[in-house]
Amino acid sequence: MAQAGTRSGNTPVRQASLREHNLGLVLRHIATGPPTAGGTDAAGGTVGTGGTAAAGGRVPSRADIAAATGLTRATVSALVDDLIGGRLVTEVAPTPRAGAGRPALGLVLAGNGPAGLGLEINVDYLAACVVDLTGRVRHRVVHRADQRPAGPRDVLARVADLAAAVRGEAERQGLAHAGTALAVPGLVTADGVVRLAPNLGWRDVDVPALVHGHPALAGAPLTVDNEANLAALGELHTAGPASFLYVSGEIGIGAGIVLDGALLRGARGWSGELGHVAVRPDGPPCGCGARGCLERYAGQDAILAAAGLADRGHTADQAVARLTSLAEAADPAALRALADAGSALGVTVAGVINVLDVDTVVLGGVYAPLTPWLAPAVEDEVNHRVLTAGWSPVTVRASRLGGDAAVVGAAGSVVRAVLDRPARWLAGGRP
Amino acid sequence: MAQAGTRSGNTPVRQASLREHNLGLVLRHIATGPPTAGGTDAAGGTVGTGGTAAAGGRVPSRADIAAATGLTRATVSALVDDLIGGRLVTEVAPTPRAGAGRPALGLVLAGNGPAGLGLEINVDYLAACVVDLTGRVRHRVVHRADQRPAGPRDVLARVADLAAAVRGEAERQGLAHAGTALAVPGLVTADGVVRLAPNLGWRDVDVPALVHGHPALAGAPLTVDNEANLAALGELHTAGPASFLYVSGEIGIGAGIVLDGALLRGARGWSGELGHVAVRPDGPPCGCGARGCLERYAGQDAILAAAGLADRGHTADQAVARLTSLAEAADPAALRALADAGSALGVTVAGVINVLDVDTVVLGGVYAPLTPWLAPAVEDEVNHRVLTAGWSPVTVRASRLGGDAAVVGAAGSVVRAVLDRPARWLAGGRP
Repeated sequence: MAQAGTRSGNTPVRQASLREHNLGLVLRHIATGPPTAGGTDAAGGTVGTGGTAAAGGRVPSRADIAAATGLTRATVSALVDDLIGGRLVTEVAPTPRAGAGRPALGLVLAGNGPAGLGLEINVDYLAACVVDLTGRVRHRVVHRADQRPAGPRDVLARVADLAAAVRGEAERQGLAHAGTALAVPGLVTADGVVRLAPNLGWRDVDVPALVHGHPALAGAPLTVDNEANLAALGELHTAGPASFLYVSGEIGIGAGIVLDGALLRGARGWSGELGHVAVRPDGPPCGCGARGCLERYAGQDAILAAAGLADRGHTADQAVARLTSLAEAADPAALRALADAGSALGVTVAGVINVLDVDTVVLGGVYAPLTPWLAPAVEDEVNHRVLTAGWSPVTVRASRLGGDAAVVGAAGSVVRAVLDRPARWLAGGRP
Repeated sequence: MAQAGTRSGNTPVRQASLREHNLGLVLRHIATGPPTAGGTDAAGGTVGTGGTAAAGGRVPSRADIAAATGLTRATVSALVDDLIGGRLVTEVAPTPRAGAGRPALGLVLAGNGPAGLGLEINVDYLAACVVDLTGRVRHRVVHRADQRPAGPRDVLARVADLAAAVRGEAERQGLAHAGTALAVPGLVTADGVVRLAPNLGWRDVDVPALVHGHPALAGAPLTVDNEANLAALGELHTAGPASFLYVSGEIGIGAGIVLDGALLRGARGWSGELGHVAVRPDGPPCGCGARGCLERYAGQDAILAAAGLADRGHTADQAVARLTSLAEAADPAALRALADAGSALGVTVAGVINVLDVDTVVLGGVYAPLTPWLAPAVEDEVNHRVLTAGWSPVTVRASRLGGDAAVVGAAGSVVRAVLDRPARWLAGGRP
């Protein structure tokens, strides 16, 4: 027990926090085991909420956990019973093993327990999804519609209705609601006020106050965060590298910066406004009041306009699909529009890499499906302009979570909070 | 003693590290007391190695330290005796106090004990200085000469000779050599290899190997770091804000990024290459191989050329002094050159602030004396281009350490290491 109660090897934990500590220790051990079918993958996506799966590893048994942690068999069994009772862990059929004796039951994260609700408000769509403890996306809904004409109150009412529908579906699947995270394309304070979302036209919108009392968002924590930050966290937890620049291309362009496994939020939480970095200081005017911002060269609307796809009666979603088809067919205007946007993005990203020193750029949002045509131009600028690129190449790739990274990352952040503090969930208990 | 042995309140420290821990505790308490005359300020500078001085605070006595830390009087006295014996702390005359009893002796950092040697290699000068434990600059030498024609081996031999002279002067002043930190304008690996210093023309220069055996650098640790990083650390320890962007203007332009009191080194330690961020992607070619880099608009040579002061038989130092005089006299060409450089710098800095979210920009190197003319243009671009500037103003100011920030910061980093680990110094003992 003495060894079991240690954190970093020599600083004993007090009795009061010992169970909490050991619950976390056991759950982490189970979470980093190989992934198994904890739930049906109804929506086809996975966000790695459970940490990096040990490649080729075996599903751990109680005895394995005792051996790995130094806890006694009896302690592990008691803790595992608590985790099973709280629907955080479930038993699976024994895996064959060498040697004598009855094979032990394996332990995996439960796919039928607590689940996170992710919501996203973006300029031309609303999205919602549910992610279970194993990281599987269990349900996902996207409503495409321009959100600019409606005010914040109406948009928040719509997203709360979407939340109600998705939460209902999650309950039908037997999942327990663990909390909600809402992604917005703007600057958000720590208490959930959207200080500025330029492309939505929002300023000083107190989200918690406006959704207060809505049943779909009640009974569990609600957090509000920048969409690129949540997407970057989702990417990080999907076996992402320890340091990378996540670029979210939508009508606006945001960034999430991950350094050494941690999100860099900046001095006041307002990092990542990549769309308002100047590509050409005297370029075309931007809605923010400045000139030559990246958004004017590489935002979704700018790309569609350059490809001749703006204002043709399509929704933006249809227009992006059309752009992808044209690029696949090697349409010169489409290829030129994407190469030009990629160059502008590459100039800006090269500047960020020179200043921040990251070696991976992840393209998300509408950039994810467009990566085959954007990445070569981005790479060209980066290789040309980053001082260290000659001996330390930079990788440019699409987000593993595709265009849904923000909403999936939002739901994943709720699940992550449960996994990080299992005792709180078991206490009745919200993350 | 139980309370005295705690770190963060509830995690006891083992006996083996208890003395080390408590020595640090007592020394920090003394270091954050009010500054006093620990040594003569021979060179006129101060870098705050001892932490933030408690404004209006009283010089602490042994009894004060016992009361503040929870250590017994006997333990404090034994620890203080060790610190005095190791020349880390010295006693000063009692300060008058209210109440009865004999006034106690005050304790301050010793100005006659260990001192750090700072060295700097830059494109057109070499510098060396000594900083004592109180943060006072005790001796400082600058040799102005273009370092580009000589190779790394010769330049390092010159800087080692400079180190020998300055170290000799420090010994004459009774100081003990605690170590050396060398600032270079380039990308440095953790083991002291300069991977690239474009403006010096250096590539893969193994500094420790090349200076190995030189007596002036022997007998104590030698660290090599980027000059802007060391300058930023110096600024941080001089009552700087918790988060800021330090910009070092020389022939090249580097940056040190401090977020929440910590230097942000990037994924591989190569952050801060601000000089190679593009101002105009198709601007004039840069030595790095790209086009339109900030250095081409706001580097020292670019500013002097724009002001008509290049190639007139002056050294760069004389030319910068001449530029300052002309600006003071409101010479139109000088003012235009500085405003244009400030605008280019402002565009770049605004991009960094949009991405990183810092609210203070510190101008160092040759920018420090030129700040009165550069800052208005920088502020204009920042206010115009930073999305959050409207409600959260950005401060642009000169470095408190002036043009010597890198070399003073380098020496200060050595002293800081002694203060952070006093037991290592006392053990015979290098930081």
